[in-house]
Formats: sequence, structure tokens, C-alpha cells
Amino acid sequence: MRPEHIHVTDPPLNPAEHQDCRGVASVLSRVGDKWSVLVIMLLRDGPRRFNELKRMINGISQRMLTLTLRGLERDGLVTRTVFPTIPPRVDYELTDLGRGLAVPVMALGEWAFAHLPQIEGARNDFDARNAE
Amino acid sequence: MRPEHIHVTDPPLNPAEHQDCRGVASVLSRVGDKWSVLVIMLLRDGPRRFNELKRMINGISQRMLTLTLRGLERDGLVTRTVFPTIPPRVDYELTDLGRGLAVPVMALGEWAFAHLPQIEGARNDFDARNAE
Repeated sequence: MRPEHIHVTDPPLNPAEHQDCRGVASVLSRVGDKWSVLVIMLLRDGPRRFNELKRMINGISQRMLTLTLRGLERDGLVTRTVFPTIPPRVDYELTDLGRGLAVPVMALGEWAFAHLPQIEGARNDFDARNAE
Repeated sequence: MRPEHIHVTDPPLNPAEHQDCRGVASVLSRVGDKWSVLVIMLLRDGPRRFNELKRMINGISQRMLTLTLRGLERDGLVTRTVFPTIPPRVDYELTDLGRGLAVPVMALGEWAFAHLPQIEGARNDFDARNAE
């Protein structure tokens, strides 16, 4: 269901709405994955090879990058193109859908970056209060 | 680091940028949590009691709602107010910070809702291709 359609007077969500919520939740969980978000951001400028991405994302393992790209490809956000060179060259590129997702993700990332000090301050205060 | 500052010619992220990335990732992971997002959406209209939230989010357990609210309170997104009535009344309300986060989260939720059929179609195609 669309977020703006949730109102406080509504009865509990019905099964069809739950179905939509699960779908939306599955997209949100992709955005909750930092590696997926980083890859989307890095591909905004154009296609990249696997090893370029790996080098740019310092600290990601081969396996994790493979899994991340596979998840993005499955969601239709990224395409994978194999060129029959020796050795084979594999390019990853955002689809139009992936490019579209990058817009609200950027807005959220900007918000998170701008408000990080406030959130970290709140966490420290909370932890100090609850350690007393 | 700010997402728009990631460019393909950049060297690998340095430790200070990594620190920021971890912070931003921790905010994104909150958005990746469907219960947190639902609670933020439901509190946009004003304060709500624990049991109201529980009733509105059909299927959430007492424990999961408690954990979700505690996480949101820790991040400074929600305040918890106890009224000394019998039995005590506990209200949860968005802070200004939480209200601010609701804006990009809504935009992302709208995008997810609008593009869900495309994403689900892509997943089905991918799974069919890879089952061959």
C-alpha cells in the first residue's frame, strides 16, 4: 500500500495490502544494504567492470560483490554484459530502473549524511541515559 | 562521504570517509527495516500509544514493536512519554528529526510502490533464466 494511504483511523492492514507491503519492504531492504547502495552510486557515471568496482569499494570481498551484483541484476537494476575477449570482460551497468532508484536513494543518502551528527548525538545521549 | 562525491576516478575510500560511510549505512539500515518505516509512517499524523500502534500494524509482535520503538528512540527519531495515570499511558511521537526523515523515506516508498511490478517481473525473468 502507498505510505500516504496509511491513516490512523484505518483498520489493520488487509491481506492484499500486506502483499504490497512485503513487496515494498523487499525494495526497502535492498536500500538498507550498504553494498547495494554503494554499487548503485558508483555505476551512475557509466558501466564498470567487476574489478574496477572491487577496487573502488575498498573492503568488499569478491564473494560479497558477486552476491550484491547478482541481487541488483535479479531486481532488474543492473545489467551484466560479457564480452568474448581473452580473458572475458564483464561489464555492469545501471538499467533505467536502477537509474530511477538512484534518485530517491541519493535524497535519502543526503539526508542521512546531513543529519548524522544529530543521530549520533541522540544515540550517545540514549546510551548514557540507559547506562545509569 | 556524500554520495555525489563518489567519482569513478577516486582512489579507494580513505578511513575518515569509511567512518562517514558506516554512519550513513547505519541510517540506511534503519530505512531497510520495514517495521521502523511503518512506525514512522503511522506516527506522521500525531502521537500514538503502544497498543494503538500494535493494533494498526497487524502481525507485529509485542517484542518486535518494543525493539523497533526503542531503536527509533535511540536514533532520536521518536520520543517516548510516560503519563502517570493508572494504568500508565505511554505515548510515542515523531521528533522533528523523525519528521524530516519521513520525507525522503516517503519518496523512496512511492518509488518502490510505483516500480514494484517492474522489479517483480525482473525477478521472475531472472529466476526463470537461471533455473534453465
